[in-house]
Amino acid sequence: MTSINHTISELEALFGERVSRAEAVRRHHGDDLSYLPAMLPDAVFFAASTSEVSQALAICNANRTPVIAFGTGTSIEGQIHAPQGGICIDVSGMDRILAVHEEDFDAVVQPGVKRKQLNEYLRATGLSFPVDPGADASLGGMTATRASGTNAVRYGTMRENVLALEVVLPDGQIIRTGTRARKSSTGYDLTRLFVGSEGTLGVITELTVRLHPIPAAVSSAVCTFASLQGAVDTVIATMQSGVPMARIEFLDEVAIEAANNYSRLDLKVAPTLFLEFHGTETGIAEQAEMVEAIAAENGGEGFAWARAAEDRARLWQARHDSNPATRALRPGSATFVTDACVPISALAENILAARAEADRSFLRTKINGHVGDGNFHVNYLVMPGDEREIAEAERLAAGVVERALKSGGTASGEHGVGLGKLKFLQREHGPALHSMVALKQAFDPNGIMNPGKLGSFS
Amino acid sequence: MTSINHTISELEALFGERVSRAEAVRRHHGDDLSYLPAMLPDAVFFAASTSEVSQALAICNANRTPVIAFGTGTSIEGQIHAPQGGICIDVSGMDRILAVHEEDFDAVVQPGVKRKQLNEYLRATGLSFPVDPGADASLGGMTATRASGTNAVRYGTMRENVLALEVVLPDGQIIRTGTRARKSSTGYDLTRLFVGSEGTLGVITELTVRLHPIPAAVSSAVCTFASLQGAVDTVIATMQSGVPMARIEFLDEVAIEAANNYSRLDLKVAPTLFLEFHGTETGIAEQAEMVEAIAAENGGEGFAWARAAEDRARLWQARHDSNPATRALRPGSATFVTDACVPISALAENILAARAEADRSFLRTKINGHVGDGNFHVNYLVMPGDEREIAEAERLAAGVVERALKSGGTASGEHGVGLGKLKFLQREHGPALHSMVALKQAFDPNGIMNPGKLGSFS
Repeated sequence: MTSINHTISELEALFGERVSRAEAVRRHHGDDLSYLPAMLPDAVFFAASTSEVSQALAICNANRTPVIAFGTGTSIEGQIHAPQGGICIDVSGMDRILAVHEEDFDAVVQPGVKRKQLNEYLRATGLSFPVDPGADASLGGMTATRASGTNAVRYGTMRENVLALEVVLPDGQIIRTGTRARKSSTGYDLTRLFVGSEGTLGVITELTVRLHPIPAAVSSAVCTFASLQGAVDTVIATMQSGVPMARIEFLDEVAIEAANNYSRLDLKVAPTLFLEFHGTETGIAEQAEMVEAIAAENGGEGFAWARAAEDRARLWQARHDSNPATRALRPGSATFVTDACVPISALAENILAARAEADRSFLRTKINGHVGDGNFHVNYLVMPGDEREIAEAERLAAGVVERALKSGGTASGEHGVGLGKLKFLQREHGPALHSMVALKQAFDPNGIMNPGKLGSFS
Repeated sequence: MTSINHTISELEALFGERVSRAEAVRRHHGDDLSYLPAMLPDAVFFAASTSEVSQALAICNANRTPVIAFGTGTSIEGQIHAPQGGICIDVSGMDRILAVHEEDFDAVVQPGVKRKQLNEYLRATGLSFPVDPGADASLGGMTATRASGTNAVRYGTMRENVLALEVVLPDGQIIRTGTRARKSSTGYDLTRLFVGSEGTLGVITELTVRLHPIPAAVSSAVCTFASLQGAVDTVIATMQSGVPMARIEFLDEVAIEAANNYSRLDLKVAPTLFLEFHGTETGIAEQAEMVEAIAAENGGEGFAWARAAEDRARLWQARHDSNPATRALRPGSATFVTDACVPISALAENILAARAEADRSFLRTKINGHVGDGNFHVNYLVMPGDEREIAEAERLAAGVVERALKSGGTASGEHGVGLGKLKFLQREHGPALHSMVALKQAFDPNGIMNPGKLGSFS
């Protein structure tokens, strides 16, 4: 391995002061929203074009220098951490919206474009990009981590919403995967291979995403339940009824208590569903009526409507603020977050077990979930730097994953692997892990792309 | 390479008379619905279990014997042809439905299960498996070719409807990809990699598919247009309006003339849309009203309703019978079929150009399409064995693909590559083709899986 200083010098010769060795810059780029300690790259290169990314990768590949791509740093399992140092390629400056094709329902963007920026830009078109992981993440990063969020139940995850990519391979070669056609059957699905590959196969430098019409009418509702099982049964029956839910979110008692305090709501402290309906005026009224009846059959009460835009905004802002609200229950605390995804029939037992385990622990815990997908999040309130508390959260979070895998589910529905969930991959994928390693080796024979993470199991 | 007879003898020693060298059996397995001449495997092995597929692959891999997986033989680009001979592994006998999880909206099946068989089985559940490529294909084959069809616009293709797979790799190793969770972000998307890989990476021995609730109400409609552009503009405006179309099919004048004759319909001979609405009673009425208004704005006339089940069945049977109906326009003829998929804004110009080219030719041609997806089919009526006619159809079909690629589309929306479209892959994928080759080599280093097709470009 050539010394890292040699690589940095070569990059500096090409890109000047857009290569930074400053401690503060490196720290910003070596830390995400996870609970892992920061792991700093040796330098950060702020790339301005595909061609620059290609040049930088060719240099790093020749020198066997690790490369980590960076968008906004809002990952939550250490996806952008640099356990082996190396060069962080920051693509946040590649933030142009290159084309919007209204008739084709797609947009072509650079990887640093953020989802709110795209939706602002689309405002006049009647179209939107619906994938919403909470953070205002970059679309490149959302693609790399296969992000989803509250409305994936209706509009899909990044898996369904990325049509095509431009990717720079580790040796600097530039490829295009997919086309603007909505479907294709001409070859291996390289687009889906890069979606969720967490920067371990190449750097995404352009993407084409699907857009969806903004619904003519939107309404929201809140419904509380005597039991979690009632809430989950409502979700299952709703989906069996064919009601095309736009959002169907579960919040447990702790989440509701926190929301009442933080967002000045006045909700009954009980297992609760936040619902959203998209359609025509007639359609959403009918949908809501059906769901209200289903909820009533399952012990739901106080089905409360939010038709006015400001009431809906207040409700979803409260959902959005669930994490700071929960932290406010224990001043000074931070949240240790995990997520898992299970077949929906196993959702209630998984959430109940997570709750029971947490209640036996000394940590305060909140559970919420994108329940239409069987995806739930468990957040443990820990004091930053308190190793005993973090270890306890890790222990509890491992239990969440173990139970999800036993139920035929997955170790993460949307947060990804990063460093935090590497340890569960063998258990989840078994012999298929060898295929992932073979695939990683085929694309990145020198192992420079985000090393020590996905694909580096040998 | 060990002699093929050695491989066959080893297989016979294990599986006895389930290994066949009979000419008729081999011919049946070396010919699909494409226009290619049959290319026979040296023997056919009728597999009964995953473990048997694994044993057979281990033998073939050790002997460097080509292997072709076979479901129903209804592919249309030569996907199951054996240009290098070898062993055809017929999995049609592996046709058990292993589990249906109603609450989770999924079913676990063996690869030989056919789509009609699954839907029969599901009848009492209120759920269905909607992907419908026309032929009553096996689900393993539909997965391998990334099949779709008329209602992909609403329910997605096999890409969106396969949750998990069991696959036997070329060396006989058995892996499982994906879980029953609806989404996951834990690793490379091996499931999507095998969907559409056309038997070139492994043999699918089990699959978990998504199910969808059968809608409470269904209605269909037919609308004729003064011009193709009017029909396409109607499709675009309909999708922008957010109407969740279940099917939106285009038939050109030739298709309508053929349907009138063959299915005793009385439709005006003009560019026509067949539409289907799924939802509640109120919902489908509202949807249809919206689409009728949009169609009227775009020169649509004679918006005719089919609410009764028998009228709808008659309409869709006519659409389904479009190919035999078209052949009946020229007694004794066969259809040479191609498909392409383009951004919807380019659909009208692509179809019009295909029509104009065909009209300058001596071949009679029909065009129809799954226009909500930008996918269209061009069928040339040729006399079997007439090489001049087949060459002319090939020339015209190549033009269809060339124009689709120029429009930012793909060489096939749903028929796949097989042997027929190999020649377009370089043009469509450019340098990404090297990644496909690398990927093929990583999974199948000995090149035994369906050789001479996808991934074998070097």
